[in-house]
Amino acid sequence: MPPTDPVSGSPATPATPGARVVVIGCGFAGLAAARQLADTPVQVTLIDRHNFHTFLPFLYQVATAGLDPADVAYPVRSIFRRLHNVVFRHGRVTSVDIESRRVTLADSSTIDYDHLIVGTGAASEFFGIAGAAEHTRPLYTLGDARRLRNDVLSTLEAADAHPENYDDGAPTFVVVGGGATGVETAGALMELLDVSVRQDRLRIDPQRTRVILLDGADRLLAGFKEALGRYALETLRSRGVVVRLGELVEEVTPTGVRLAGGEWIDAAAVVWAGGVTVDGTLAASLPVAHGRDGRVAVQDDLSLIGHPEVSVVGDAAAVPLAPGGAGPCPQLAQVAIQSGAHAGRQVLRRVAGKSTVPFTYKDKGMMATIGRRSAVAQLPRGLVLRGTLGWLAWLGLHIVYLIGFRNRLIVLVNWWWRYLNWPGGPRLIDADVDASQ
Amino acid sequence: MPPTDPVSGSPATPATPGARVVVIGCGFAGLAAARQLADTPVQVTLIDRHNFHTFLPFLYQVATAGLDPADVAYPVRSIFRRLHNVVFRHGRVTSVDIESRRVTLADSSTIDYDHLIVGTGAASEFFGIAGAAEHTRPLYTLGDARRLRNDVLSTLEAADAHPENYDDGAPTFVVVGGGATGVETAGALMELLDVSVRQDRLRIDPQRTRVILLDGADRLLAGFKEALGRYALETLRSRGVVVRLGELVEEVTPTGVRLAGGEWIDAAAVVWAGGVTVDGTLAASLPVAHGRDGRVAVQDDLSLIGHPEVSVVGDAAAVPLAPGGAGPCPQLAQVAIQSGAHAGRQVLRRVAGKSTVPFTYKDKGMMATIGRRSAVAQLPRGLVLRGTLGWLAWLGLHIVYLIGFRNRLIVLVNWWWRYLNWPGGPRLIDADVDASQ
Repeated sequence: MPPTDPVSGSPATPATPGARVVVIGCGFAGLAAARQLADTPVQVTLIDRHNFHTFLPFLYQVATAGLDPADVAYPVRSIFRRLHNVVFRHGRVTSVDIESRRVTLADSSTIDYDHLIVGTGAASEFFGIAGAAEHTRPLYTLGDARRLRNDVLSTLEAADAHPENYDDGAPTFVVVGGGATGVETAGALMELLDVSVRQDRLRIDPQRTRVILLDGADRLLAGFKEALGRYALETLRSRGVVVRLGELVEEVTPTGVRLAGGEWIDAAAVVWAGGVTVDGTLAASLPVAHGRDGRVAVQDDLSLIGHPEVSVVGDAAAVPLAPGGAGPCPQLAQVAIQSGAHAGRQVLRRVAGKSTVPFTYKDKGMMATIGRRSAVAQLPRGLVLRGTLGWLAWLGLHIVYLIGFRNRLIVLVNWWWRYLNWPGGPRLIDADVDASQ
Repeated sequence: MPPTDPVSGSPATPATPGARVVVIGCGFAGLAAARQLADTPVQVTLIDRHNFHTFLPFLYQVATAGLDPADVAYPVRSIFRRLHNVVFRHGRVTSVDIESRRVTLADSSTIDYDHLIVGTGAASEFFGIAGAAEHTRPLYTLGDARRLRNDVLSTLEAADAHPENYDDGAPTFVVVGGGATGVETAGALMELLDVSVRQDRLRIDPQRTRVILLDGADRLLAGFKEALGRYALETLRSRGVVVRLGELVEEVTPTGVRLAGGEWIDAAAVVWAGGVTVDGTLAASLPVAHGRDGRVAVQDDLSLIGHPEVSVVGDAAAVPLAPGGAGPCPQLAQVAIQSGAHAGRQVLRRVAGKSTVPFTYKDKGMMATIGRRSAVAQLPRGLVLRGTLGWLAWLGLHIVYLIGFRNRLIVLVNWWWRYLNWPGGPRLIDADVDASQ
């Protein structure tokens, strides 16, 4: 029999010496924390409801049929195969008992910790807009991306079979939110429509099929310099995306969206890139202060006030930009990676009897792609790239960050193939359609 | 507006001259028929409920996490991208009006034909065994393979977390049916268990985790020479599969199977490789004779008696081995490909005013893989391969038959990587687990 936990009867982590560290979430933040703790004397239990890490920056590619789901997902057990002090536990954490230092999973088993790192990420924020949660497609999990892809491809097939079902003879897709995810998704949708008509010979009028990108602000890419937002706007418009700024969504239904001014837009699918909040149940339930957008307030070293043994990192936390209360950092992959790694290092300092040190964010820039051969990149020291150069930088950097050689190679094959002649591509409607049409 | 069909109002195939040919089903048979008709003066409408062709021989690899779903599926529109007389229609055919020469789809639209080729394939045959249809996993669609993979991987994760839930401390997987699919799946499951314990460090006792292969006959691989069946039996047993011959399943429940002798076997998942019948609704409803296993009786040229304009091909038909009533052929990919191509050629002969010619099956052999470096191949002229040589022949032949360069390349990358060090692999549980546990 394997050793069992004395409290719950469930199997304990292997009997390595040292402190018990529990990391919740295998996103960029949790993964970075666990990697810092790999091959050290602590014993790490990494918990996630998925058995894979998802490379979120490429989700819009899965949603628009440029990449396969497996291209952007990597099994957690494979990542830590040779790191024997890190154990993976597949499950969903339902609560943290911060006083008795114990997490409870959905299957009622419990795991005790000496140090806890919470990296549970973000979820879509619908701002209370009627119907938005029910009738839009967010892009925050692999399942989201698969569902959106199935919706879009099924819509195009239905439009091919029955153009008479659409007022204009063609469907409209609406993307809500003009940040990086919205810009990238709108650009990629336009390219998918193009390839669907030109290569797949779908009988859809490309002049009438519309991708509409809505944002309440008067510019795109709010986190970027204004010139880059303008460049994204011009590029998207030149490629046929209908960009409408200063438009607020009032209601979403299964057939379209109503704008604040009362205008109605028929839509075959509505993509939600409108904003993120903390992923519901767990981080939000921690007995500490939360910021405006639900993010957990943390100290300069990323721990909770009164609980130095608990850190919150990544999108779930209001990560300070620098010691002294500046910030919080934007919810970016780089922030998640750096804050997760920092929390991991602080656990090692505490185990070694040292005091913790404050977190400082090292800006490595931001990027957003607008389509083939076009992206914007805002790098440190004021350096700005756009167009093909920006796209190549974006491509190279993201692939470098992809975990695991195999995935990287296959993404490269996919990408180059797509770039060279945009071939078959993974345009599979992989829903379980057996019972449907 | 695109041109519309005068009868249904739905868009017609483009106005190319010539006869209207409808092909139902994009499996090996339908695809081969459509390829024969590509770049000819007829106009072809190819209908399938999926927008992709599935390479069925590799489904067991998807189910056991060796390949990704997209590795074995290829979008139909990509296959016929440059063949402008072939039009794809995504939908499910619900009925054929053989007198008025019209097919009706689930969305109520209709398509008229001058020639019809039916290649709707097979479905699992459960022989009326209680619970088999509800509680086993067949392996006949990509959805089947994904569901089985999710089941198996989720079971292994649950066993890692809670070995106390299993009597033996480990789960048992049962495969029903000792034909090629059953042998291949049992062998691959055993390898998956091995890699799960050795590489993924799942805390499962490999000595106690069992794969049980059941068959009612006294040998494996009934369609192959007896020596190859013995070789498969010995190889599977040497690799740890529990092969039980002469065992009939009486009942399947969510927790296991009961054998005809009364013995109960706990099972975390039951794979159904027990047999196939004609895919329900359509081919079975044709007003013609059907064989013992539901297959449609066809004439020597594969057409229906009294309806020379209708052919049934592939698994759905009792394809004659040779003129004069020999046969029927086994339900193999090669039979589907050859019969589909034959039916396509006969349409061209009839359009040209020629008489049709009978079908003759050219035996190109059969293969089944038992695992890494082991397969059996029964080639024409009595040639037999087994072991590593058989495996290499199996691998090469199947990859040659994979459609499309991109897929072939990625499958090769996957395979070689897997062969060299069995790495990450696509062991993703891609079910929508958000609401589960």
